[in-house]
Amino acid sequence: MDTFGQKFKVSLFGESHGRGIGAVIDGIPAGIPLSEQDFTEDISRRKSGAKGTTPRIEDDKPEILSGVFGGKTTGAPLAVIFRNNNTRSSDYEIFKEKPRPGHADFAAGVKWNNFNDPRGGGHFSGRLTLPVVAAGVIAKKVLEDVCINARLVEVGGVSGGEEKWREALDQAIRDGDSLGGIVECSIEGVPAGTGEPFFDSVESMISHAVFSIPGVRGIEFGDGFHAAGMKGSEHNDPIVSETGHCLKNGAGGVNGGLANGNPIVFRVAFKPTSSIRKTQTTYDFTTGKMEELAIPGRHDVCFALRTPVVVEAMAAIVLADLMLR
Amino acid sequence: MDTFGQKFKVSLFGESHGRGIGAVIDGIPAGIPLSEQDFTEDISRRKSGAKGTTPRIEDDKPEILSGVFGGKTTGAPLAVIFRNNNTRSSDYEIFKEKPRPGHADFAAGVKWNNFNDPRGGGHFSGRLTLPVVAAGVIAKKVLEDVCINARLVEVGGVSGGEEKWREALDQAIRDGDSLGGIVECSIEGVPAGTGEPFFDSVESMISHAVFSIPGVRGIEFGDGFHAAGMKGSEHNDPIVSETGHCLKNGAGGVNGGLANGNPIVFRVAFKPTSSIRKTQTTYDFTTGKMEELAIPGRHDVCFALRTPVVVEAMAAIVLADLMLR
Amino acid sequence: MDTFGQKFKVSLFGESHGRGIGAVIDGIPAGIPLSEQDFTEDISRRKSGAKGTTPRIEDDKPEILSGVFGGKTTGAPLAVIFRNNNTRSSDYEIFKEKPRPGHADFAAGVKWNNFNDPRGGGHFSGRLTLPVVAAGVIAKKVLEDVCINARLVEVGGVSGGEEKWREALDQAIRDGDSLGGIVECSIEGVPAGTGEPFFDSVESMISHAVFSIPGVRGIEFGDGFHAAGMKGSEHNDPIVSETGHCLKNGAGGVNGGLANGNPIVFRVAFKPTSSIRKTQTTYDFTTGKMEELAIPGRHDVCFALRTPVVVEAMAAIVLADLMLR
Amino acid sequence: MDTFGQKFKVSLFGESHGRGIGAVIDGIPAGIPLSEQDFTEDISRRKSGAKGTTPRIEDDKPEILSGVFGGKTTGAPLAVIFRNNNTRSSDYEIFKEKPRPGHADFAAGVKWNNFNDPRGGGHFSGRLTLPVVAAGVIAKKVLEDVCINARLVEVGGVSGGEEKWREALDQAIRDGDSLGGIVECSIEGVPAGTGEPFFDSVESMISHAVFSIPGVRGIEFGDGFHAAGMKGSEHNDPIVSETGHCLKNGAGGVNGGLANGNPIVFRVAFKPTSSIRKTQTTYDFTTGKMEELAIPGRHDVCFALRTPVVVEAMAAIVLADLMLR
Repeated sequence: MDTFGQKFKVSLFGESHGRGIGAVIDGIPAGIPLSEQDFTEDISRRKSGAKGTTPRIEDDKPEILSGVFGGKTTGAPLAVIFRNNNTRSSDYEIFKEKPRPGHADFAAGVKWNNFNDPRGGGHFSGRLTLPVVAAGVIAKKVLEDVCINARLVEVGGVSGGEEKWREALDQAIRDGDSLGGIVECSIEGVPAGTGEPFFDSVESMISHAVFSIPGVRGIEFGDGFHAAGMKGSEHNDPIVSETGHCLKNGAGGVNGGLANGNPIVFRVAFKPTSSIRKTQTTYDFTTGKMEELAIPGRHDVCFALRTPVVVEAMAAIVLADLMLR
Repeated sequence: MDTFGQKFKVSLFGESHGRGIGAVIDGIPAGIPLSEQDFTEDISRRKSGAKGTTPRIEDDKPEILSGVFGGKTTGAPLAVIFRNNNTRSSDYEIFKEKPRPGHADFAAGVKWNNFNDPRGGGHFSGRLTLPVVAAGVIAKKVLEDVCINARLVEVGGVSGGEEKWREALDQAIRDGDSLGGIVECSIEGVPAGTGEPFFDSVESMISHAVFSIPGVRGIEFGDGFHAAGMKGSEHNDPIVSETGHCLKNGAGGVNGGLANGNPIVFRVAFKPTSSIRKTQTTYDFTTGKMEELAIPGRHDVCFALRTPVVVEAMAAIVLADLMLR
Repeated sequence: MDTFGQKFKVSLFGESHGRGIGAVIDGIPAGIPLSEQDFTEDISRRKSGAKGTTPRIEDDKPEILSGVFGGKTTGAPLAVIFRNNNTRSSDYEIFKEKPRPGHADFAAGVKWNNFNDPRGGGHFSGRLTLPVVAAGVIAKKVLEDVCINARLVEVGGVSGGEEKWREALDQAIRDGDSLGGIVECSIEGVPAGTGEPFFDSVESMISHAVFSIPGVRGIEFGDGFHAAGMKGSEHNDPIVSETGHCLKNGAGGVNGGLANGNPIVFRVAFKPTSSIRKTQTTYDFTTGKMEELAIPGRHDVCFALRTPVVVEAMAAIVLADLMLR
Repeated sequence: MDTFGQKFKVSLFGESHGRGIGAVIDGIPAGIPLSEQDFTEDISRRKSGAKGTTPRIEDDKPEILSGVFGGKTTGAPLAVIFRNNNTRSSDYEIFKEKPRPGHADFAAGVKWNNFNDPRGGGHFSGRLTLPVVAAGVIAKKVLEDVCINARLVEVGGVSGGEEKWREALDQAIRDGDSLGGIVECSIEGVPAGTGEPFFDSVESMISHAVFSIPGVRGIEFGDGFHAAGMKGSEHNDPIVSETGHCLKNGAGGVNGGLANGNPIVFRVAFKPTSSIRKTQTTYDFTTGKMEELAIPGRHDVCFALRTPVVVEAMAAIVLADLMLR
């Protein structure tokens, strides 16, 4: 389903090259100040234009259709839409016949009997993360005292920051290849007890939302995969105050599925962009043979560069939902 | 919520030391042969008794209360319950005052104003995975042509198999400490196209279910975290046949959130058991000071040993739900 | 689905002549005093034994399996089960071949390929209203300041009370026939604003729950069907105070789907019991012909007599859910 | 919530005098031919303009934003929006102070702390039934072999048809008063077995959807309220064929909550329009006294005239959801 959440409910729609994309957000408390300008900052963090991102530039202007009156949310569902302007659909016509490795082309065609919109990946495009960011802006407003920060900590296997990544990006651009990355997100201010046993644990809900971002390969909380090799005496977090504050945070802020009052910390692994100029092989359904495929179009060399704000938005959506419950 | 799934819906209830625990499973197709004996094999895989597991032995006998008639499922909800027999609740009385590091004691107390049942972790106990296994047995029957296999691939940071792990386990037992582990799960036979955009991707649903297992710290699909350091030309899976078969499986069987017909492969990191004999420090709510805590009771040294069948059950529940949609 | 509610979530299971029936209730706030004795009064109001009700007497003893600790709800799901003792399943064997008019026999057989449990109506039996009543008892406790009263206002087309109905009941017993009835329910203390636009209006949720009671044919709020023949100036309720109190209550306490602070009033029409001794005709799937059918067994002549407490329970479940949202 | 359905999921948004209203419909099977012209007929049946309806005329032109490609549904969510053009918001400014009897003004103000959009009833306006009709058009296409017909059978207490109603309408117009009406809906072609025990019976789901239409006071199936006064031998429907066909249809096509293969028949009571020119009294929150109120604006004298297509849409949405399950 394209809907997530019980109390703060986000429904997405749209295709990359269709008329528009958007979200309907239900369950927003009444009285929160909100205007279309409030989306600007987070939307610009997701925008392309920097080194390693696609030259397709959309204006990404939100239009709020409902749910705001007199500059404040009304309590009724808020619909926000974005028009698609800068599309070049001719680029995509061949991918029903020659599905792109790493893309949904093949699986979506099977699922929907080839009635799916193939242009720009259609409904499976990363463009759908734009209304996610919009919903995240609203969720962050709901979460007044919660502070969410996601940042890129690794690109192409290199940690350390932009200067170190530049070289790897330049090389990938020259090679017509692509890179992945790792995003770390830290959330402060979530009250202890947030989360629901058994199935709607904080980690369950965050991972559910995060894995819906196209291109995610893994998620880990606190000590993460490293914890599997630790001893209990190393991994356990000693509690040091009546607010539950811990000396260390190996659990990443969650015990038994519930927030324990410490920062919630998780890392997300993004794969390298699937669309590359470099020649690959794929199955051609018209010839019935393996054929070479070089993907022209306009693509991010490393889409992970644009994802920290998307990860933040997903975390905000989850926490708004859990905290409003 | 303690309910998971839309079409194959599992609701859990129970506490570790209460009268009993169980599950109600709704949405089981009518006419599937099922008896209480069918649960035996998977339940025994979850049982304690082996080196590194708790000496608390429960008989874990399922009683089916409804939903089966004449040896076949009826289409109506199936309730299965397990009585708790072997409980020693006196062990747990102090943990409201001195919450155990790594446990839900503190967060659950905050959430439920200390009305939560603290005995054996109450509703947050790993014992809740018993009805999960039972639901998994039924889900596997629903998934006739799907084959799910989970196995432990690492214990205490050591890969390679039981003989190598024995030493690490012996050492941890001697130290009064505990170990974690990594489980790998592989699923064959899931039809291409299974899964739902945008939010109910295969990875989203599996990770949601898996992170509800107590003690999970991370999950990754296919190349997983390693993918973040790969190039697109390395990570992409070349399609080689009209059934979508790929030369390699870096995506772990999922593209754009949909199964692509290749095996679905994921790995789960389990933390070391939180309850250890070794002395730890924690906050004492009665004295208002840090105090030492040694947890007696009966605990697994490495509960990850018992989890492969639980991971299988969760995968089965998710896929039964997605495929019945 | 056998589950109702978002925040106060009731899942039912069981068959009339199976091992047992029950409910799992999730979302109960922690700290509410509750024991098995608390169910006694409402369960006894649903019991048979009075004139016009079935001679099948079950002890209807609840067993709480989980969710209560130290005499108070814990916040975790509460499971309550009832064993079936007094069953005579031989009575029901023929109804797969000769479906009883007015019963689910035929439709359930089609739905579940005849794997449904036919004994006593199986999962479609009115016996399922027993765990509904139990869930209602808990819901009423959640709704501290809300007062719910349902009573029978008409039996067999006769209004006015037990004495007047006795004659009609006696006649129906003599004839081997059955009677219907009308229940009126009034609810005081629901805060103005309760309910959710657009789909989860107070009337939508109450009617949803009430129509799941077997044998309901209609429901109306306030002036009900009569309102369709009134003028706006007659039907509108003039507001007379700042708490929204109205001079009259033609709307039955709901405007725009939201409670308006006045008593919520609705009436429910119950059909006459479908199982009658009197000879009827039905299709015989073995002979392929219309055949006569006289239903022996033990049945209520007027099951509506037992339903006021069930209607109350449904109203309580709905309001607990809406008010906890 | 503003979302209905599990498999065929409709989410509504919008306010009467805001920028626009619309629906997102998720779960539409791929490959159904659909264009904006397909909405014309049903939308025109809901339009105003006839005697007894409001002079506010909107062009009600649908714009499909997503979910259709090459003239066919894609399987992805379909968003359809309608702009509001013909609004006169000044008419509504006083109703926060002087809530209109029979309207949601007071209850919505309480619910949303007066942040609700009051113009034209805001989100509580009957205008929201426009996207419902649009969703119904799509649902009808999903239900290929199902035939749904709703028609007005009574206006202002008068049955019999347009000619007889004209006089009552003329009189109400002259008086500045309003009338109600009764709509009957008949549905053929629903397969026996459709519906879900226990809570999602056919009647439960239809009544849930129907009571979300503004202004409904009651619903009854088959013999309806009349059944409460019948004997079992009169009300029961004798089965006469192996397809479950009955001699009569007192149950309205539903037994045990499941469709039994006979036409599903129900009647819906609509109240008279709440907004009337005739002077009423209401509480004035500024003066703290009862004050007179005459509602100018542009309103239907009998909005029930416009509802048959809305009732059909709701029935179609419910059945599409139940049948796709």
